[in-house]
Amino acid sequence: MHGIKLTLAYDGTAYAGWQIQPQRTTVQGVLETAIERVTGNSSRTLASGRTDAGVHALGQVVGFRTDSKLSPETLLRALNAELPRDIAVLDAARVDDDFHPIRNAKTKRYRYVIHDGPTRDVFGRHYAWQTKGPLDAQAMHRAACGLLGRHDFSSFESAGAPRQDSIRTITDIHVARGQGTDQHTITTEIEADGFLYNMVRAIAGTLVEVGRGAREESWPAQAMAATDRNKAGPTAPPQGLFLLRVDYGQAE
Amino acid sequence: MHGIKLTLAYDGTAYAGWQIQPQRTTVQGVLETAIERVTGNSSRTLASGRTDAGVHALGQVVGFRTDSKLSPETLLRALNAELPRDIAVLDAARVDDDFHPIRNAKTKRYRYVIHDGPTRDVFGRHYAWQTKGPLDAQAMHRAACGLLGRHDFSSFESAGAPRQDSIRTITDIHVARGQGTDQHTITTEIEADGFLYNMVRAIAGTLVEVGRGAREESWPAQAMAATDRNKAGPTAPPQGLFLLRVDYGQAE
Repeated sequence: MHGIKLTLAYDGTAYAGWQIQPQRTTVQGVLETAIERVTGNSSRTLASGRTDAGVHALGQVVGFRTDSKLSPETLLRALNAELPRDIAVLDAARVDDDFHPIRNAKTKRYRYVIHDGPTRDVFGRHYAWQTKGPLDAQAMHRAACGLLGRHDFSSFESAGAPRQDSIRTITDIHVARGQGTDQHTITTEIEADGFLYNMVRAIAGTLVEVGRGAREESWPAQAMAATDRNKAGPTAPPQGLFLLRVDYGQAE
Repeated sequence: MHGIKLTLAYDGTAYAGWQIQPQRTTVQGVLETAIERVTGNSSRTLASGRTDAGVHALGQVVGFRTDSKLSPETLLRALNAELPRDIAVLDAARVDDDFHPIRNAKTKRYRYVIHDGPTRDVFGRHYAWQTKGPLDAQAMHRAACGLLGRHDFSSFESAGAPRQDSIRTITDIHVARGQGTDQHTITTEIEADGFLYNMVRAIAGTLVEVGRGAREESWPAQAMAATDRNKAGPTAPPQGLFLLRVDYGQAE
């Protein structure tokens, strides 16, 4: 048996999220079926984090153990031939037996996409939160900067998946409006050493309150300091969220 | 009765093309149902051109006549409330009674999107032609420039929708590879005073033969000069094609 690390992209639209559930089509379920077809044996996969229904990934990392003799390159091609067109293996690599996609992760990076144009974006309905009325992206960016650093983020944690503690460090956060044909697209990216449940969506929902002028730019940082989910803004919808990448540093 | 000109965006994935057909869901059928619900009367719409199944639009222009008293702004909002989320009215305007979306069009502009990355783009499966192996976009661009100007384009016309003549003038054509995260996306844009049936897709299919090194850069212009559909490359698939805009000049 040896460890394999896969980097995956998927369009989450058709899936009830990452994690296997009875009677539901999930990314994990479809991937494990493909792995069994390709290697001849069932393997339990572990992802760097579960993504919810409708959430997408450009660089999800998944580990599993197998005794298959297939090279990582062959495994990649064979899995891509088995997988449906909304899931792709971007990379496959052998890893140490003790590789753990969650515990070994040093940083993760998410993107949240908002469309604030005057009419709906017909191509963004599964890939962006379409807000009513234009947002002030620069105000959102200044507000977001107040969340940088090491804090208790429990104001941005949904119930249902309690973590040991709610202290995390955001190492990068920015909000930017696109240009040209992307002028109605506002992209938020957040990098941290870890994320609480629904943290990116709660931050996005809070920043939008600033963007639409309902709250001051200082409010998100104040809401964070209150360490109370009820003090922050609503949880933004899932379809705007993309897991961009997971970095494992040298341990990889 | 007065004329209304609508500018539409639609995701063609779920539709059997623009034109009404029995027992099929078409953009025209869905739009005419929405117009009837909003105005109370049925209206026959006419588009600047029919788009095939799976082809998208960012700026399709559609005309119809109505005796509705609704202002164009109200009509726009009411139609967008009725229409499904993959069709949007971007603009509505009153036009002269004799406005004709096809005959009055001065130029049309199309985009054709290709993805040539090493693994499939899970988000592009309905919005790009995913080719096997990388393409030389610069060679494709140089080849495309050989099609600029006034020519007989019958080498790029599919059977099934004969035009009076096959002489058209391409006023702009370019092929460019994206940068950064778009590095595997090759975008071709073509503007002309009119297009023959499947002309953009036939040109895209022909340029890809150059991009993959199967043909010389001079070949597309030679294939055009032969005025024989069998001398040019294959017709590229529909999902990469976007009708970008239709310009009506002063006559608008």
